[in-house]
Amino acid sequence: MPEANSPHPMALGVRAAAREIAAKRLGVVEYVAAWLERIGAREAEVGAWQQFDRDLVMAAARRADNEPPRGPLHGIPLAVKDVIDTFDLPTGYGSPIYASHRPVADAACVALARAAGAIVLGKTVTTEFAYFTPGKTTNPHNKAHTPGGSSSGSAAAVGAGMAPLAFGTQTAGSILRPASYCGVVGYKPSFGLVPRAGVKALADSLDTVGVMARNVEDAAFFIGVLTDRRALRDIADSAGLPPRLGFCRTAMWDEAEPATVAALDRARAALLDAGARIDDIPVPDEQRGLVAAQDTIMSYEMTRLLADERLRHPDLISPRLAQLFDHGMTIGAETYDAAVATALTARLRLAAFFGDCAAVVVPAAPGEAPEGHAYTGNPVFNRTWTLLGTPAVTIPAGRGPHGLPVGIQLVGRIGDDARLMECARFAERALAG
Amino acid sequence: MPEANSPHPMALGVRAAAREIAAKRLGVVEYVAAWLERIGAREAEVGAWQQFDRDLVMAAARRADNEPPRGPLHGIPLAVKDVIDTFDLPTGYGSPIYASHRPVADAACVALARAAGAIVLGKTVTTEFAYFTPGKTTNPHNKAHTPGGSSSGSAAAVGAGMAPLAFGTQTAGSILRPASYCGVVGYKPSFGLVPRAGVKALADSLDTVGVMARNVEDAAFFIGVLTDRRALRDIADSAGLPPRLGFCRTAMWDEAEPATVAALDRARAALLDAGARIDDIPVPDEQRGLVAAQDTIMSYEMTRLLADERLRHPDLISPRLAQLFDHGMTIGAETYDAAVATALTARLRLAAFFGDCAAVVVPAAPGEAPEGHAYTGNPVFNRTWTLLGTPAVTIPAGRGPHGLPVGIQLVGRIGDDARLMECARFAERALAG
Repeated sequence: MPEANSPHPMALGVRAAAREIAAKRLGVVEYVAAWLERIGAREAEVGAWQQFDRDLVMAAARRADNEPPRGPLHGIPLAVKDVIDTFDLPTGYGSPIYASHRPVADAACVALARAAGAIVLGKTVTTEFAYFTPGKTTNPHNKAHTPGGSSSGSAAAVGAGMAPLAFGTQTAGSILRPASYCGVVGYKPSFGLVPRAGVKALADSLDTVGVMARNVEDAAFFIGVLTDRRALRDIADSAGLPPRLGFCRTAMWDEAEPATVAALDRARAALLDAGARIDDIPVPDEQRGLVAAQDTIMSYEMTRLLADERLRHPDLISPRLAQLFDHGMTIGAETYDAAVATALTARLRLAAFFGDCAAVVVPAAPGEAPEGHAYTGNPVFNRTWTLLGTPAVTIPAGRGPHGLPVGIQLVGRIGDDARLMECARFAERALAG
Repeated sequence: MPEANSPHPMALGVRAAAREIAAKRLGVVEYVAAWLERIGAREAEVGAWQQFDRDLVMAAARRADNEPPRGPLHGIPLAVKDVIDTFDLPTGYGSPIYASHRPVADAACVALARAAGAIVLGKTVTTEFAYFTPGKTTNPHNKAHTPGGSSSGSAAAVGAGMAPLAFGTQTAGSILRPASYCGVVGYKPSFGLVPRAGVKALADSLDTVGVMARNVEDAAFFIGVLTDRRALRDIADSAGLPPRLGFCRTAMWDEAEPATVAALDRARAALLDAGARIDDIPVPDEQRGLVAAQDTIMSYEMTRLLADERLRHPDLISPRLAQLFDHGMTIGAETYDAAVATALTARLRLAAFFGDCAAVVVPAAPGEAPEGHAYTGNPVFNRTWTLLGTPAVTIPAGRGPHGLPVGIQLVGRIGDDARLMECARFAERALAG
């Protein structure tokens, strides 16, 4: 048990909570039950969960209390987006085609998280095959608004305090955008860093597994543990010196609403106050075609990777997804290959884009979460970085005119996730201070 | 019905057979039944099939005769390696863990092949999770020898005349090596060309879907149809002018047995006779570490991607695979990242490696298929090209001292599969002529 005057265990970061559990100062059952209580209080309004089995969770918590710590996540609750396979819970990919689907194995990322001691709380709502047709989830800050998508349930679960960590996946903007809308940290690691085996494949060149968390340290710690990257796991121990950061409006600046412009201005002022050096980076020519290239590649690949569903179950495909398939079928191989070449060129010029900057700050989303639930918002500010494979993270940067959260996005060098997350932690503190 | 003096339909290439079928000069039932008869005659000795349901195949053939041609593969029989999901046949991944596993969907590549009219004949034997623990298959040229692996059944099925086309997958040397051993064409397309959704993921940076066929045209036609690449589909229509080809001994030349040295010498003489220009290419320094880098990346990724099987079913993992996992757990992230960087450097220098050559000829395997069935042979000559993502194809180039086939391998530029296959077709004709 924690001491009487110590903070409530739910307020601890996951590394600290795991330490308390390992030291037997905090019981897993007690800790997990606190999160379940929060789910009981919030789920009816938020609708973040697709599959949730309280008994299964509590049984896992009791087992965890009766065994030595498995790893650095021992006893830490984890939500799993429902495009990621779990052997003990149905996995529906947001589609009626898979309404009763029960995978025989955990996805690799889930198996690795469990091996490190994480306790799967349940499966979170995804849009249909992580595309644009939404599920039941509402924004935890205002139920009249979308939580964003496609990792809707994961962002809303963390945003509503129902889970400290939640797996998300991103093919266009499915981690960063809902995280920005729900006021949480959303971290898309470098392409390929987190294993994808057992994650429903949509676009093989783009699909990336990442995480939602309440703060940058938790997100970095979780992915660092999963991938055995010590520098990423332990950014809390870094010196936290003021970094040199770029600010780039990107080729999509016309899409930025006043709420996003204001969030970037707030971030710039806070970062300068905290001692960061800021370079204004012009939009590189080679990045101007990337949003279109990403759309081409995603449409082409999804149409082909979902060939079984498209051909055998046309009646169970939503109109929005059917429209994507119709579009995808019109894209020829030459057009696809040209888009891939465009991306490669831009990737080879990333070193010049970053210059001396450790990371570059860009919009995370056009603005606050749109009102209504039919539309999950526009991933226009995320497509470029998913296509390039750079790590990217959104952190909350205040509220917009409707009182909803607005994030900023930091983008880092491919493979240097630790440095990116150190910068994000610096920015998070600057914005809080 | 074909005319009385025309060749037996089984002797036709797949493009020609599909044309006969589309023109109603050849019935699908008749054509498929001929292949089934061959299976009946050869399967007891060869053991290429893991799942085979004659009634299912004949029902599909009858349906195909009663509908307009679906696509360019209408009525063409296709074998599918048993690491590739099929909705209508169990898929076991070569592992007792999945002994009764029945996927709910076709892999994307199977769905696309069926949409083009192909008829799935059955599932072919794979080693355990496409690693080194073999199945029941023997070499169709001498049952005392291995067919190679991991696409053992696919290579043996085509080599024994039981199928005109068979899907294979390659993570180290699992298409090229068994194809060389079984005397067939094995074609590993550029990395990412054929969709991998629904193929058991082993090493995400390496896994590549390809095909076994009786000749280069069939292999190119099949992959060209699946991926809608016209130049690749129709290499039969290319001028077939003598190409400029490189010969490279590779950094692994010490592993080449006399049978492989002789096959390369035969190929060189035949190519020169046919008018090809040949450049001898020295081994580039940046390629010297690639076999080790591929092994590091494969071991690291397989250990993590198969985390569910490794952790939940340790008793059902073979000793050989358990050894890989033990090794994989000792590989740190820094070592893995260094191997990835080594590969990237070599990939960026491929243009210089090819120079003015359209393709480069290298060994396909150390020599003939080894005797015995416990060992599927050494993929040492394939690892480099799988890691680099270049397209590669093996063609038969005579026999070794034991009377078994020996192949040569041609390697092409990433993304220029059509040119590679044109070169391979030229070499195939040169060797035959």
